[in-house]
Amino acid sequence: MIIVDGKAIAAGILDEVRNEVAASKKKLRLGVVVVGNDVVTRHFVMEKRRVAESVGIDMRVYPFPETVMPNELRARVTELVREEHNTGIIIQLPLPSHLPRQHILNAVTPEKDIDMLSARAVGNFTVGKGVLVPPVVGAIQEIAAAHGVEFIGKNIVVVGAGPLVGRPVVLWLLRSGATFSVVRKSTPDPASFLRSADIIISGIGKPRFITGVMVKTGIAAFDAGTAESEGKIAGDFDDDSVAPKCSLITPVPGGIGPLTVAILLRNLVLLARSRKK
Amino acid sequence: MIIVDGKAIAAGILDEVRNEVAASKKKLRLGVVVVGNDVVTRHFVMEKRRVAESVGIDMRVYPFPETVMPNELRARVTELVREEHNTGIIIQLPLPSHLPRQHILNAVTPEKDIDMLSARAVGNFTVGKGVLVPPVVGAIQEIAAAHGVEFIGKNIVVVGAGPLVGRPVVLWLLRSGATFSVVRKSTPDPASFLRSADIIISGIGKPRFITGVMVKTGIAAFDAGTAESEGKIAGDFDDDSVAPKCSLITPVPGGIGPLTVAILLRNLVLLARSRKK
Repeated sequence: MIIVDGKAIAAGILDEVRNEVAASKKKLRLGVVVVGNDVVTRHFVMEKRRVAESVGIDMRVYPFPETVMPNELRARVTELVREEHNTGIIIQLPLPSHLPRQHILNAVTPEKDIDMLSARAVGNFTVGKGVLVPPVVGAIQEIAAAHGVEFIGKNIVVVGAGPLVGRPVVLWLLRSGATFSVVRKSTPDPASFLRSADIIISGIGKPRFITGVMVKTGIAAFDAGTAESEGKIAGDFDDDSVAPKCSLITPVPGGIGPLTVAILLRNLVLLARSRKK
Repeated sequence: MIIVDGKAIAAGILDEVRNEVAASKKKLRLGVVVVGNDVVTRHFVMEKRRVAESVGIDMRVYPFPETVMPNELRARVTELVREEHNTGIIIQLPLPSHLPRQHILNAVTPEKDIDMLSARAVGNFTVGKGVLVPPVVGAIQEIAAAHGVEFIGKNIVVVGAGPLVGRPVVLWLLRSGATFSVVRKSTPDPASFLRSADIIISGIGKPRFITGVMVKTGIAAFDAGTAESEGKIAGDFDDDSVAPKCSLITPVPGGIGPLTVAILLRNLVLLARSRKK
């Protein structure tokens, strides 16, 4: 059974990113829009800064108060996107619930949208236009490449359909010729799908939701869930009961998480390169 | 068992479209780009013209030779989209295989894209921006509304993942909170999915591919497949063996087909209305 070392795979990608950054004449900058002052969000932003700076990418946080008005935030994001020094812009999620998330995300133009969450980036990815991949998709692809996981012809179950994990994963599987099922909150009997899955990709943020009795032996388990549980970051799989039945499992933390940050920065470098042309 | 009368449901939508067209100060025009001279394509184009004219919408065909160069076609489509008199523009599919289909489709801007096949329209629909729906999705929604079919909490199987049927249906199910599986050419055992389905939506264009032994009793069968078989248009379901097991089935022809044309024209009217604001 393989416990994926996401940090090790990420290190290889970050080496390439570092080389590209060093070869670039221009200073590359990642702009991060942060609304409010949530402690978990702050942790993720700090982690991005640490990794970005380790490869020579400048990171700048644009903080907004929790009470910012939707129109003001959207207008400011539009300005930040136009700012030439920002090679890429991301909106740190989740946003406070009074803000229209998708409307704010749509202010990021495809030329700066390294998270691929705007309507235009989502459309481009769905139809196969452009070279970027959503970070979670790139993370899964890199793990699959490192360990020889094949998707075509397998029975794949995606748990959850949110904008950060389930949706981009579904769009990728749709493009790539795979057979897949989506189970979510409204599914009466998710276990009936999970039981026959060869590959499970989960991103619901419910600690230890998927247990060993729900899955068959030999599966590949991709855990893109992150939630706080008893002061620690926990994934969607109950590792104690699921891992012994897996051919491969990604731990939380240390699996998909570090890879999504590496792919985010690779996207930034790819966009910088394509703009030079 | 209900055999859906697509023409009757379409007639109600077309009545509303006719009223909107009559109330509009401007003449509305549907521009149809047709490449080559395929006989089946010509049949579908003639049918669109007949329906468009029956509600007072002017239809103009822009013909191109089979040998048109990609760049020339894309440039001409861009011009036709800019032409103010064209309220909506569609590219009649399939295109000859030497043409980059998606690249041509992307030349249609969202303000004119009533088929919703461009990258931007696909992105808008996926994230829930805008009011249009892809014609096949609108067709299924209207049938469901007419006959009280519910999708949430059901086991839905989508057969095929092409740009005209499977993809827009998946994007809709993804948005709408449904539980669904996608089976396609690469799926080792499609029957294992079909057997447990409550609702099957198929758009592969393989005459009578789905037979009665593959499905359980009581299903709703949405047949969006159209292929020529022995000189007639045939759907993906083998009606003789499937229909007796269905609670509802859409025939081919006369089911989803007439409704997609009605939704296409409704999209045109909706775009015309939103432009006036």
